[in-house]
Amino acid sequence: MSITDRRTLLQTAAGLPLLAAAPGSAFAQSAAPAPAAKPEAPKDVTRKLASYIVNAKYEDLPANVRKEGVRTILNWVGVAIGGSHHETVDIAASALGPFSGPPQASLFGRHERFDIMNAAFINGVSSHIFDYDDTHLKTIIHPAGPVASAIFAHAEMQPVSGKEFLNALVLGVEVECRIGNAVYPNHYDVGWHITGTAGVFGAAAAMGKLLKLNEQQMTWALGLAASQPVGLRESFGSMNKSFNPGRAASNGIFAAILASKNYTSSDGMIEAKRGWANTISTKQDYTEIVSDLGKRYESALNTYKPFACGIVMHPSIDAAVQLRNEFHLTADQIDHIDLKVHPLVLELTGKKTPREGLEGKFSIYHAVAVAIVEGAGGEKQFSNRAVNDPTIVALRAKVNPVVTPGVEPAQVDMTIVLKDGRSLHKYIEKAIGSVEVPMTDAMLETKFSDLADGILSAQAIRKSMDACWQIETLASAADIVKLSVAG
Amino acid sequence: MSITDRRTLLQTAAGLPLLAAAPGSAFAQSAAPAPAAKPEAPKDVTRKLASYIVNAKYEDLPANVRKEGVRTILNWVGVAIGGSHHETVDIAASALGPFSGPPQASLFGRHERFDIMNAAFINGVSSHIFDYDDTHLKTIIHPAGPVASAIFAHAEMQPVSGKEFLNALVLGVEVECRIGNAVYPNHYDVGWHITGTAGVFGAAAAMGKLLKLNEQQMTWALGLAASQPVGLRESFGSMNKSFNPGRAASNGIFAAILASKNYTSSDGMIEAKRGWANTISTKQDYTEIVSDLGKRYESALNTYKPFACGIVMHPSIDAAVQLRNEFHLTADQIDHIDLKVHPLVLELTGKKTPREGLEGKFSIYHAVAVAIVEGAGGEKQFSNRAVNDPTIVALRAKVNPVVTPGVEPAQVDMTIVLKDGRSLHKYIEKAIGSVEVPMTDAMLETKFSDLADGILSAQAIRKSMDACWQIETLASAADIVKLSVAG
Repeated sequence: MSITDRRTLLQTAAGLPLLAAAPGSAFAQSAAPAPAAKPEAPKDVTRKLASYIVNAKYEDLPANVRKEGVRTILNWVGVAIGGSHHETVDIAASALGPFSGPPQASLFGRHERFDIMNAAFINGVSSHIFDYDDTHLKTIIHPAGPVASAIFAHAEMQPVSGKEFLNALVLGVEVECRIGNAVYPNHYDVGWHITGTAGVFGAAAAMGKLLKLNEQQMTWALGLAASQPVGLRESFGSMNKSFNPGRAASNGIFAAILASKNYTSSDGMIEAKRGWANTISTKQDYTEIVSDLGKRYESALNTYKPFACGIVMHPSIDAAVQLRNEFHLTADQIDHIDLKVHPLVLELTGKKTPREGLEGKFSIYHAVAVAIVEGAGGEKQFSNRAVNDPTIVALRAKVNPVVTPGVEPAQVDMTIVLKDGRSLHKYIEKAIGSVEVPMTDAMLETKFSDLADGILSAQAIRKSMDACWQIETLASAADIVKLSVAG
Repeated sequence: MSITDRRTLLQTAAGLPLLAAAPGSAFAQSAAPAPAAKPEAPKDVTRKLASYIVNAKYEDLPANVRKEGVRTILNWVGVAIGGSHHETVDIAASALGPFSGPPQASLFGRHERFDIMNAAFINGVSSHIFDYDDTHLKTIIHPAGPVASAIFAHAEMQPVSGKEFLNALVLGVEVECRIGNAVYPNHYDVGWHITGTAGVFGAAAAMGKLLKLNEQQMTWALGLAASQPVGLRESFGSMNKSFNPGRAASNGIFAAILASKNYTSSDGMIEAKRGWANTISTKQDYTEIVSDLGKRYESALNTYKPFACGIVMHPSIDAAVQLRNEFHLTADQIDHIDLKVHPLVLELTGKKTPREGLEGKFSIYHAVAVAIVEGAGGEKQFSNRAVNDPTIVALRAKVNPVVTPGVEPAQVDMTIVLKDGRSLHKYIEKAIGSVEVPMTDAMLETKFSDLADGILSAQAIRKSMDACWQIETLASAADIVKLSVAG
């Protein structure tokens, strides 16, 4: 009997309980009509994806894809370092320490070492704590967390060249974003935290690539990944949110490691009738997964947040920073600031008198004021210090947001009226950090430096960023980690 | 700002990306109407369940519940030992060895030791390999796998009395079966392997009970469990099926350990709008979760498979074994055997000439013949040896199953016609192993012994079973593990 025969047989066997459970209510229920038939799915989705991952080479990546991959890495390393001393990370590290395997991999920004799965989990948590990581805007997936957490941990244990690493990262991001596209928005709308559910595929794919899985093993790795989706949106607002990319990373490693030893799964776990997409979403667009593989790159659409707050305030901060810099504005020059905004801005960020840094993230008044005074919107601008700074407190009282029909959430129309009577105007059509107006490399460096400040020395920050930019020439991608741990 | 305020704030913050992502298609999609409103859910489902788990005492358990809990433990230990040398377990142990933490817990039937999460995973795999573990027939959950795997591992690391252990096991089973009831059958029908999705709650609850979590921590543990559902039905027929209860066990431990250090989640992860039940099922019956806690015990409805094959063949094997024993039948006496069966029997198990043991599980012909010849239907009766035994091969050609209207899948009407002209008849209304006709303690012992034969010595098997029966008097539940590892 061939392996395929055996699998078919087992498949049938496993179906037995539903169809023929022993006496009890299960019988009655088994007679219920099956859910409405889905349109026929393309065949071999999982296998085609696996084949692509196994065969894709660094040399095949277009220059813009490589460049965006490098930027993704630099941005991710910055946020992972930045979040590394948050209470959430302290708790995770202390809880898991007693159960960790050998010290195979480091925590960014810290000194502890864990086995690769626990390290990947904690780094994934760390990188998402500030909601400041990268975003694939079509799906709201934060792609780097699950993928980079997994393969940086692995790279410390087994040598991985910078080129191999970049290739694996791009593939992982590609896989999760394509799978995300296939089920978004229904899958997200119903309640899944798509970063954790699609992310586990990305982690498994990237990890499997570095483990040099063959096509069958990669198919199984994707199947074991499909079996471990992570995260519900109800957890947003608790430590559980950053848990999700972290657990997606460790689950992806778990899947790839088992598959590497021929732990089997089904060959059609993504597309089969009782597979991932049908089970986890009411929308399935498999062409998003398999079309133009190696030609269309979702990873090239990755974006980075310039400001450490909800995206709804980004246009206003962008406008304020631009006007401040163009006119060398100081707070004492300003009479008042008028903003024409979308209703969501006041609905979500209408807090007039924030008292703590976190509350500042929900105050358009604070965000505009601090942007004028400090020319930025990073974590430091949403600290207890910033929201209680007398100059900023005084200025925020002069900010007048007005809900205005026709202004989209991505837009703002700002007029700053100065005490000398001048009126300065800025209209933002697409805020900085969008696909159309990407953050510059210099901005990414500033963001990285601000996040790592106080955790790494200025010199170490410089070296870590340089290593990220130069990853394609590194003999070992682990050099980036070595330069990014606490001294 | 209170912790509640902070959480509300963070919650709002976290909602931002959906409502106000930067320019791109996410905007258009955010304007789409929300899915149809669900009927209002009872409040505090997660918290009520947590409160029950935290406060439930061994002394409160009714005698029948304790008794069924003990039987659940004995049956589970038997199947965990029985599966422990399957290729699937060898692969899992070898793949995970290099990443395991300290040797905190044993593998049943083997000699390796792993950290508790990896040990729980592997024992969970081992116990489900033969599809021979316990079944909560209302949901087709196999309850012990996720729960017992988790808490046996923990009991080796920290002393747990037999009574505490039994109480935690019952609570874990209760939690997963009640949560399963709330979403079954829709949740299962769409494709989830409910043992892995509900099981992670059971593991987290039982583990959290032994870690003595307070109500808030238990609420978070359930929330972190909700974030980690495991398993899709498409994986049935591959090693991925037994992966699911194992991973549910380790995920549950992971959740409970983090919660024990105050790693937070939302307080309403089961019932909230974007929580588990709404996200993962089109049916939510929360009264199944919170009604009559401490009065109605789903765990008392647990059942055990007497035969190592799909339940659809159980009535026929039961009838054959009964007639064999009543009339001391031997194969050479038999002219032919007529069976009136439900159509599923032939549809699923119609293989006339199995050549390998596994194929025997899909042959009603073999199942009846081997039951007559050997008086049993255990793993040994579905071995390569058994399906090629000349006596059994000859007899199976004399088995005539006939699809008969009015016969339910749980039933069979068997007539054995002997060469001497006698006609022996047996009608099975409810097969052995059902709630109505439970396996006797002696049958459970025979099953255990058969499974452990060749792995433990006869003396060790006796001691292990005795320890299971006597768990309520054990100072340390870990004694059962010590008596169940390879010598």
